[in-house]
Amino acid sequence: MAKDMTLLWGSGSPPCWRVQIALEEKNLQGYNQKLLSFEKGEHKSKEVLEINPRGQLPAFKHKNIIVNESCGACFYLENQFKSQGNQLIPEGAAEVGLMYQRIFEGQILGQKIADVVRYTKKVPEAERHDSAVKRNREALKQEIQTWDGYLKGSDGYLSGKSFSLADVIVYPVVAFFFRLGANESHYPNLAAYYNKLKVRPSIKKTWPQYWLEAPGQEQLKDL
Amino acid sequence: MAKDMTLLWGSGSPPCWRVQIALEEKNLQGYNQKLLSFEKGEHKSKEVLEINPRGQLPAFKHKNIIVNESCGACFYLENQFKSQGNQLIPEGAAEVGLMYQRIFEGQILGQKIADVVRYTKKVPEAERHDSAVKRNREALKQEIQTWDGYLKGSDGYLSGKSFSLADVIVYPVVAFFFRLGANESHYPNLAAYYNKLKVRPSIKKTWPQYWLEAPGQEQLKDL
Repeated sequence: MAKDMTLLWGSGSPPCWRVQIALEEKNLQGYNQKLLSFEKGEHKSKEVLEINPRGQLPAFKHKNIIVNESCGACFYLENQFKSQGNQLIPEGAAEVGLMYQRIFEGQILGQKIADVVRYTKKVPEAERHDSAVKRNREALKQEIQTWDGYLKGSDGYLSGKSFSLADVIVYPVVAFFFRLGANESHYPNLAAYYNKLKVRPSIKKTWPQYWLEAPGQEQLKDL
Repeated sequence: MAKDMTLLWGSGSPPCWRVQIALEEKNLQGYNQKLLSFEKGEHKSKEVLEINPRGQLPAFKHKNIIVNESCGACFYLENQFKSQGNQLIPEGAAEVGLMYQRIFEGQILGQKIADVVRYTKKVPEAERHDSAVKRNREALKQEIQTWDGYLKGSDGYLSGKSFSLADVIVYPVVAFFFRLGANESHYPNLAAYYNKLKVRPSIKKTWPQYWLEAPGQEQLKDL
């Protein structure tokens, strides 16, 4: 029982979700957790700020060690619990190399989704341009096609034959992409990966309740 | 001699530089390397595209294993050469946690510098706004103050008492920041860190020749 860990999280946030997946994979159940609401601004609460001064979720603590950056928390858990649960860093050099490559490329993918989805949140109305919206959508489309190509003829996971930190970190981003209404038939290899991993225990158990309850979005319907 | 490695790089690029630092730290000298010119568009050449289809530098290959994402390449080198050269992942849990936290926070820092420095490159003229420039600069200033705070009373490195992957990955970003004319007296702790590590052999040896030859810039003089 991981009673010496605390996770403050929000439902439907890919960064929060990846930490939950990592905890399940490392067989770290029973940690202290609290579901907070972004809508109510609870990520800016004193409780969060005490762990994460950036006022963002996740906020994660193990004993007195704080690792709020979600990718960092996943790496930390694998590093500290190497022989517990599933091994998330492969043995072979080729798989290791591909894993690190995909993890950091995943940051590019996440950024391009955010550029489209969070445009009106991030850019004040007076600074918005249809040309920017169009360019961001085209850049995202191209990026997703790149990832669809990566999965074509793959061994089933992002870095080869075994589920790794690359999947822990990037899968929630892929799921978020499809949650936004993207057409699975346009990205068949990525969609196959998405659907295959839906039933993996660590992922199924932590699937965002918010997504199950709230209707899917259509923001990327035409992508 | 690391004859089975190839690095295509550009001078003055923090991502390229961090891979060079990692190679030095792991005592991997003698690799095949080629300095290319961004100005001449050589990062879009066939030679680069064969290794890095994104047409970006660095392009890095070990045997037939390609890891172009610069942070990923640093992780890969540490993973594959654990007992060679300097150990770049600390032993203690607290230092490990802090290392991963700083590495991924470093992505935020890099992004905020890019938002300011590459604004006119990334945003077409018709979409530019003084209000965005101002906001980006303020966001960068706040981020840098955060990092200055991290270094206050630190043990000398980003993740504690020993030089780690956090330094390999983030130091080039900090150096780039000061290269752009930022006032060291405004960020005394960060400046002390910057100056202390200048003489570390791996860093001194790989210091961008371009920076030594071309005059410093003044873009962040007033920050």
